[in-house]
Amino acid sequence: MGAEKLIKDFQAIVGAENVMSSESDRHAYSYDSAVLDPAVPAFVVKPVSTEQLGPVTKLCNEHGLPMTVRGAGTNLSGGTIPHPGGVVVLTNGLNKIIEINEEDLYAVVEPGVVTAQFAAQVAQRGLFYPPDPGSQTVSTLGGNVAENAGGLRGLKYGVTKDYVMGMDFYDVNGDLIKSGSRTVKCVTGYNLAGLMVASEGTLGVFSNIILKLVPPPKASKAMMAVFSDVETACETVAAIIANHIVPCTLEFLDNATIRYVEDFTKAGLPTDAGAILLIEVDGHMAEVIEDAEKVVNICKKCGAGEVKMAETAEEREALWTARRNALPALARAKPTTVLEDATVPRSQIPAMMAGLKRIAAKYKLDIGTFGHAGDGNLHPTILCDNRNKEEFHRVEEAVDEIFDVALSLKGTLSGEHGIGMAKSKWMEKETSRATLDYSLKMKKAIDPKGILNPGKIIGE
Amino acid sequence: MGAEKLIKDFQAIVGAENVMSSESDRHAYSYDSAVLDPAVPAFVVKPVSTEQLGPVTKLCNEHGLPMTVRGAGTNLSGGTIPHPGGVVVLTNGLNKIIEINEEDLYAVVEPGVVTAQFAAQVAQRGLFYPPDPGSQTVSTLGGNVAENAGGLRGLKYGVTKDYVMGMDFYDVNGDLIKSGSRTVKCVTGYNLAGLMVASEGTLGVFSNIILKLVPPPKASKAMMAVFSDVETACETVAAIIANHIVPCTLEFLDNATIRYVEDFTKAGLPTDAGAILLIEVDGHMAEVIEDAEKVVNICKKCGAGEVKMAETAEEREALWTARRNALPALARAKPTTVLEDATVPRSQIPAMMAGLKRIAAKYKLDIGTFGHAGDGNLHPTILCDNRNKEEFHRVEEAVDEIFDVALSLKGTLSGEHGIGMAKSKWMEKETSRATLDYSLKMKKAIDPKGILNPGKIIGE
Repeated sequence: MGAEKLIKDFQAIVGAENVMSSESDRHAYSYDSAVLDPAVPAFVVKPVSTEQLGPVTKLCNEHGLPMTVRGAGTNLSGGTIPHPGGVVVLTNGLNKIIEINEEDLYAVVEPGVVTAQFAAQVAQRGLFYPPDPGSQTVSTLGGNVAENAGGLRGLKYGVTKDYVMGMDFYDVNGDLIKSGSRTVKCVTGYNLAGLMVASEGTLGVFSNIILKLVPPPKASKAMMAVFSDVETACETVAAIIANHIVPCTLEFLDNATIRYVEDFTKAGLPTDAGAILLIEVDGHMAEVIEDAEKVVNICKKCGAGEVKMAETAEEREALWTARRNALPALARAKPTTVLEDATVPRSQIPAMMAGLKRIAAKYKLDIGTFGHAGDGNLHPTILCDNRNKEEFHRVEEAVDEIFDVALSLKGTLSGEHGIGMAKSKWMEKETSRATLDYSLKMKKAIDPKGILNPGKIIGE
Repeated sequence: MGAEKLIKDFQAIVGAENVMSSESDRHAYSYDSAVLDPAVPAFVVKPVSTEQLGPVTKLCNEHGLPMTVRGAGTNLSGGTIPHPGGVVVLTNGLNKIIEINEEDLYAVVEPGVVTAQFAAQVAQRGLFYPPDPGSQTVSTLGGNVAENAGGLRGLKYGVTKDYVMGMDFYDVNGDLIKSGSRTVKCVTGYNLAGLMVASEGTLGVFSNIILKLVPPPKASKAMMAVFSDVETACETVAAIIANHIVPCTLEFLDNATIRYVEDFTKAGLPTDAGAILLIEVDGHMAEVIEDAEKVVNICKKCGAGEVKMAETAEEREALWTARRNALPALARAKPTTVLEDATVPRSQIPAMMAGLKRIAAKYKLDIGTFGHAGDGNLHPTILCDNRNKEEFHRVEEAVDEIFDVALSLKGTLSGEHGIGMAKSKWMEKETSRATLDYSLKMKKAIDPKGILNPGKIIGE
């Protein structure tokens, strides 16, 4: 069938104005936030009701047309780069918060709702939705679920997975699958909602998502601890957890990151520090005061030069703004920013940092490292220029070696950025050939024509 | 191939002493804790190392022999009733705690480790494993994961699912699949570990399980609130949550249950009360004192006749012993105990209780109801005699209607007991035909010969 006829069929489902096929539209949706080559889709479809997702999916399946569902395109592993000649399905028209239930502590949302806007609505009702991926001001909840997005609060509050109570999604035939419930407990059937989490759009098309909410902490206290070297900062992280304190955020910035952030934001960070930890504890006021004091003592005992408590809301905000600017500040330094996501059990952070130092020297690369130290999720960030083939080859070899070190420390090659197209070639190294075969069999059974975001996670 | 040869092949894997085929052994493993007819297996295999699980599974697959992995057989939905003529694989020889990591807050266990023994070991190391299913003194962690076991602490601490960080399991070819990690965050590949949770042994054979641990609460306080009627007790539950207090346990016992428990245990429960709530708050001492006071006030404001705080460890223990005796006490009353598991959003508990009252009257049945009111997970328990065909027909009709009521209140037909063989016929009512088809396709692809615990969840 010709493209003209196909476009008409999609227009019949979503309306003529919601099928885009101009050169500029197609190019606008040919890439995401990963350092990967773009792929231009044949056209772009924007459903305006979740009911349209079923017929759209069915039509794609009938024509064997690869479809990639796209939220905000903040993906860092190429999960939203479409198949060349395929269809991009936008969720930004599906942005209704269907229900926020204050009595039963859950919400029901459409996939295109923006994370931070949702969190703000929830906060207005006196409740709390903890997952806070770095891109939360633009990222969508559907994208967060598809990638199992993490964030700064992972250590204490968990990640997106821990908040998905249930979900309705469409299979390739356009039929609606229901899994999970509005109840805290539900064991009716396979945990398909759990399987959808981190499946990167390869197993179904999300319709409605049921998310768990919690009461907000009553108080919090943030501080910055300054260290002369990376090792001491890392040992301090382990010491805090070993003392059974679970901060809501426990972030690490190395010297390179501190300098780039300070240059960018003039936040007053100590540019001569080897590393800093940004720490926030939350909970009941009495506990917060006690824990904050304990953390200060642990930091000092471990060798922190200074521990600066945020005394006002503005001071607290300044700390987190500095942290949130780590990536944009590093990204300004060189044309290409390769943001990695190696994650290790937190006691292994010192070993991981030593490995990164060795790798940077070996491959003569500029690596700034920051990240969620409390949950062992580091973001070594390689600053380079991917037009320089020789340098980029060294980058690729360095990334390979970063994964080897992470795996040797019983870690994982992706903590929160997903596998997408960027990391599928390393999957077998961490898991096993049988794991890929098991996954492929499942995928093939559920999506025999391979139309659902092909090439992601397990490769082509 | 003859049974003799097959038995020899299994003996070659696990040792001659670990293949049992006597009449008494086969009958011992023909049933579990559900009210369902037994099915006698051909023989029983007891691996003594997890490495033997691969070859055992492979051998079953080669011969198309149905295999049912069995922990302690405490299953309440028939999940561990074997296929007639199939093999039962016992996990009680696989009971090693491989690692308890205090720095990184996780443990690695074999599937046959007993839940309460594991929790005790963890507690000795100063940490906490919260899931506490009713059968924890005998149930196994593998069984808990296969069923996504809940318990009393679900409201605040979640269920087994929330503690599974990763898992190795064998596919039907006897190859090892790896999913998840020892890290807080991991998005490497499909969430197969999450899919294994609640899969009731139908998608793989668990080898090692990585479980999350948390620091224990510093303090706790338990109390009993006495109500003249069920409605007031239920409204109190909703009021506690609406006030943003999340007790670690919030249990409900109706008058019938109170009377049976008191008759059994002489614990001093108020036998003339319409209902009681058993409530425990935990956390930092200051928060516990505050929350306990708030809960007392809410109970009184809602209409509780008396609120009795447990002042000593013994008084606290007496309350929870009374609660844990609810099921055994009810089970003493009549020959057959049909323990249901209907679960609703907690604000719907009053409506659910009204429904249960109506159903009990309509079908002239004796129903005692207790359960985890805080998470909406009630256990209406029908006391009957399944040899009385006419009565048992009424029981079946009542159960059907209980599910209708739960679903009409946006609840689920199983909160924590699983689907097994007991409830697969109701699956479509809660989900959809497409959900079953999706599940069947997945199952067929992963287990083409249908050897992994056939007949469970999605039926034959």
